[in-house]
Formats: sequence, structure tokens, C-alpha cells
Amino acid sequence: MADPKTLHDLPTPALVADHSALQRNLTTMAEALPGDRLRPHVKAHKCTALAARQAAAGHTNFTCATVREVEGMAAAGLGNDLLLANEVLDTRRLGALDARVTVAVDSTETIRAAASGGVREVVIDVNVGLPRCGCSPEAAGGLADEARRAGLLVRGVMGYEGHLMMVDDRAKQKAATDESMALLLQAHGDVGGELVSAGGTGTYDLNSAATEIQAGSYVLMDTAYAKLGLPFELALSVLSTVISVSDKWAVGDGGLKALGMDHGDPTVEGANVWFCSDEHLTFSRSPSPAIGDQIRIQPAHVDPTMAKHERLYLLDGEDVVDVMEIDLRGW
Amino acid sequence: MADPKTLHDLPTPALVADHSALQRNLTTMAEALPGDRLRPHVKAHKCTALAARQAAAGHTNFTCATVREVEGMAAAGLGNDLLLANEVLDTRRLGALDARVTVAVDSTETIRAAASGGVREVVIDVNVGLPRCGCSPEAAGGLADEARRAGLLVRGVMGYEGHLMMVDDRAKQKAATDESMALLLQAHGDVGGELVSAGGTGTYDLNSAATEIQAGSYVLMDTAYAKLGLPFELALSVLSTVISVSDKWAVGDGGLKALGMDHGDPTVEGANVWFCSDEHLTFSRSPSPAIGDQIRIQPAHVDPTMAKHERLYLLDGEDVVDVMEIDLRGW
Repeated sequence: MADPKTLHDLPTPALVADHSALQRNLTTMAEALPGDRLRPHVKAHKCTALAARQAAAGHTNFTCATVREVEGMAAAGLGNDLLLANEVLDTRRLGALDARVTVAVDSTETIRAAASGGVREVVIDVNVGLPRCGCSPEAAGGLADEARRAGLLVRGVMGYEGHLMMVDDRAKQKAATDESMALLLQAHGDVGGELVSAGGTGTYDLNSAATEIQAGSYVLMDTAYAKLGLPFELALSVLSTVISVSDKWAVGDGGLKALGMDHGDPTVEGANVWFCSDEHLTFSRSPSPAIGDQIRIQPAHVDPTMAKHERLYLLDGEDVVDVMEIDLRGW
Repeated sequence: MADPKTLHDLPTPALVADHSALQRNLTTMAEALPGDRLRPHVKAHKCTALAARQAAAGHTNFTCATVREVEGMAAAGLGNDLLLANEVLDTRRLGALDARVTVAVDSTETIRAAASGGVREVVIDVNVGLPRCGCSPEAAGGLADEARRAGLLVRGVMGYEGHLMMVDDRAKQKAATDESMALLLQAHGDVGGELVSAGGTGTYDLNSAATEIQAGSYVLMDTAYAKLGLPFELALSVLSTVISVSDKWAVGDGGLKALGMDHGDPTVEGANVWFCSDEHLTFSRSPSPAIGDQIRIQPAHVDPTMAKHERLYLLDGEDVVDVMEIDLRGW
């Protein structure tokens, strides 16, 4: 295929983003949380080219969720300060990377794994209310001591208030975030270190306890985050071609293999989405679309949507102005 | 990484299948629908190595859902008879393939696209009750004439009774399948040709009208299909490592980026699945697992799960006996 010049050249389904909206999202965040106040989470886009844009906006420390993401960021020259904000027992691939790598630990086992894999720096992951990883706040100090005895540098604490990202009353969200962060600060008192790493797009402006915020979704956004009234624009969609039209419904190419479905059905502006199949979206709209029309499908969850695509096309209106490989997929 | 010898060598999350169960599924289906009575649908696994196993079991005609799947099957030497059972307007990549390619059409526009793209053979796609692609049964004959006037060979009809795959009362499922297929046979009377292509894993033994069945899920299965009492075994799971344990729950690596979530949460035998995050599964089990334990996560929907992984590891007990690239992903 020749290089696509406009969206009409793209084989569909194709993942696209509005370039100017994306740039405005980068700017808005960089103004709110400049430089190291933001540690962008690459799990939201899995794309080193987008991470490079975030670095150009001033954020050169990054958060990762998988070993593959850490490897890819290091290989792309973005390894200034990478935090693997996740527990990992298989550390074989982490120790030899040409990057500063810090790993989250929440147990004796993960401390041992970090030390034996050649990882040099860790943060103590503290559970602040989301039933997932992290030790109890009371256990954090003891684990920090244990990590230091194992020869690891303890940089501080992290604690993700993921259960609070989608609270739609901001006053309640602020109060709950403060409660969560009180637990993290209590742990930090016992652990020490310069880092109190937490937060996400939903609490980026409410979390005043963290020294750095791990937001990622803000760059591209999705329909779930768009409901919260944050100052970030929905830049992402899946470009789809209408391939079949009946008197009651129409069908676009691009279905649940092209969209993160865990937050529910995607949205097509001005249309009723009936359901997604593997490679189809059935919808109705008045007036009915014509076969060959292109539509934009807005995903409900950005992270898994990105992980399903090989590349992201950046658009200025109908023009394709950049193509980014989504190169941090897999494990 | 050295070649993995046992499942303890695999970086997790890893997609695995029980080799003997997979082989039994292949054999069971080949006995029920030998040779060309089955046209396996590669969308279920997106893996030419698995398609080669199906060919070795006697099925050398295949069904595809995307242009990429058709291209990949042709490149793998499995292009004996490929049916793209989907409408496509962008036919640029189909005409030049070294394979016999037949494309589904349901409109003047898709007929024109097939002819202009160098496609030589089509089937008329008939809507048999699922609100998706396909013309009305009454329109099929006219579209066949139109296709022939455009220089295309019309091989017959297809009509997917996808809305009936998960009906859990077999007598009701049989009656509804017969009704659906009556529409397809009516269209076939007007269209002619040797093919009446329909069906899936859920109706493979009930659909007596179709000359060939387009089943795919039977090879690996998922928890949704497993509920139907079919003679196919659940061979597929995502291997996960327990990375964190608290007093109330445990966390495995592997979450909604590793699992098709559109049919709901996955299953862990003997455990309660609480929820999936991007890279985590939170669950509880009694007795509690230990950090480092491996668990098997059974996906609710096989097709999108396969599409999220780069490779499939075949296991004989704990031994890795084969590694298959999932090479038909993307578009």
C-alpha cells in the first residue's frame, strides 16, 4: 500500500486520532503537571512514538505495566527513568536493560525476584483501596527494610487509587482520594525515599499528596473518561467503512476485535449502536448511511483498544499527518 | 529466551492449549463433518499453523473474516479454496493473491467492488435472521444476476445463523436453525450454484441444509460454548502467575488485554473471579494460592482472545510441545 494521504486511503478498520486534539491534551496536562510532576503511563497507548511526544512536552519519566513496555521504552531511548508499576516475579529481562528501571514490590517474593534479576531500585507498592496489588500500609516499612537488606535502593512508595478514577462527583472523588492518599503517606513515613507515585487521569488534579501522577488516558481519552468533564478531548476513534445497509440497520467493518469492550459498547455519534461482532458493528442512524460511507467508532476504553491495533494514524481533518507503530503490545 | 520446555519457562500471561484436547476436537469434528463438509473459520484462531492441522484432518477449504486472513492463508499455502465470508469494498489486496478466493456480496456496491478488484468468484450473502450483513432472501436472485453480468462466477449462497449459536435448548435451536435455513434455501433456489455455506460450532450437527459448515470455535472452545454440552473440550486458557496475595484476594498477571471480555469475565476453576484490570485478574480461592503459583484463566470468548496474543503454546501436561504464531491478526 502506498503511504496513506487521507483517511479515504486507509484500510478499515483503522485506529485514528485527531492530531490537534491530541496536542491540546498534551499541552493541557503539561501545564497542569509540568515535567516530573507527571510520570505518563504508557500502558494507555503502548506506543513509543506517543511517549516521545510526552517527553517533548517535558515528561521524561514514565510508568509501565509490563516487562515488554519497559524493554520497548528502553530500546526507543526513553529509558531515563522507567517505573514498572506492577509486581513481577520473572525479572530475567529487566536487569540488563540500558535504562534506569525501578520496580514495584509488595512482598518478600517480589523483593527477592527484583534482587535476583539484577534490578537495582524499587518502590514499595501500597494498597490504598483497590483490591489488587500492594501491601497493607502497616507492612510497607518492614518491606522497605527487607528490600534494603537485599541490596536494593528504595525510592519511595506507590499506591494506585484506581477504584476512584470514575467517581462522577468531584467533591466525593476528592475526599475519597485524600483518604486513600492518607494511607499512602502513612506508609511513606515508614518507607522514606523521594517518590510518592500515584494517581491517574481521573484524579490528576485532585491528588495533591503524590509527588508524581501516573496518568495515561488523558492523551487520547475514551467515552468512559469523557463523561467526567475533564479538560481533555476525546481524540481517539476507530475509522470504519459501512459495508452493508438494510432498511432497519447498517453495518460497519470493525467490531469487538478492534475495540476494548470491557467498559461496554462503543459510541457512534448520532447513531444507535446495536451490538458488536468480531468484525462488525451493527447500528442504526437516521438518515441511513450509504454503503461506502466512513464512520468513527469511539471506544469505551482506550487502553485495550490501543493494544488491538498495529498502528495509529494521526489525522488533521481528513489528512493523514503521521503514522505511529503501537510497538509495546504483548508481553 | 531459550525455547520454553515446560510451562514454568513461559513468560506470563501466555496463551496455552492442551494439545491432546485440541487433537480430540479436530478428530471429533472431522468424523462428524469430514472433508469439505466443514469449511473451518480461521477467525476463531487467526493461526495458519492451526489451519494446517485442520487441513491435515481433511478440511482444505477455509472461511475467513478479513482481507488479512485471506492474504495470510494464501501466503501459507492454504489457499486451495478461501471464502471471505464478509462484505468488503476495499478489494485492492484480493485480486492478485495466489489462491482461489471467493467473496461474499450483498449489494450492488459490493458486487462492483469485487469485480473491480479482480475477484473472480462470489457467493450471495443472505440475511437469515442475525441483524448484520446479507441481503433479503427475495433480493438474492437479482443480485446473482447482477454479479454474473459483472463477469463474476456465482458459486452459491451463504447465510450465518449467528443469533442461534448460543441457544441452550437443542430442540428449539434445531427448529430455529431449520427456519433460518429455509430462508437460505429459498434464496439458493433463485441463485443456483454448488455452495450453501452456513453454520457454526453451535449448530454444526443441527444444520442439515448447508452443504458446508463454517465452524471455527470447536478447535479451542471457550466457556460460553462449553456450556452448550457439545462434544468439544475446552482446550484454551491463559497461563497466569500469581504475583500478589492478600488475606482476602489474590492477583494473577494477565487481564483484559489478554482475554476477550465481550462475553463477560473469564473463569478460574475452583476460584471466584472478582474482576479484570488491564494486566491483572483479582480472584479469591480457598485455600489461598501462593505467590508464584501458576493458574489457568479460561476465556469466555475464544476469537478475540486469540487476536490479543502473538503466539499459542501447545502443552502436553506441563511440557511445551509446540509453539504456533498467531499470524492472521490485524487488518
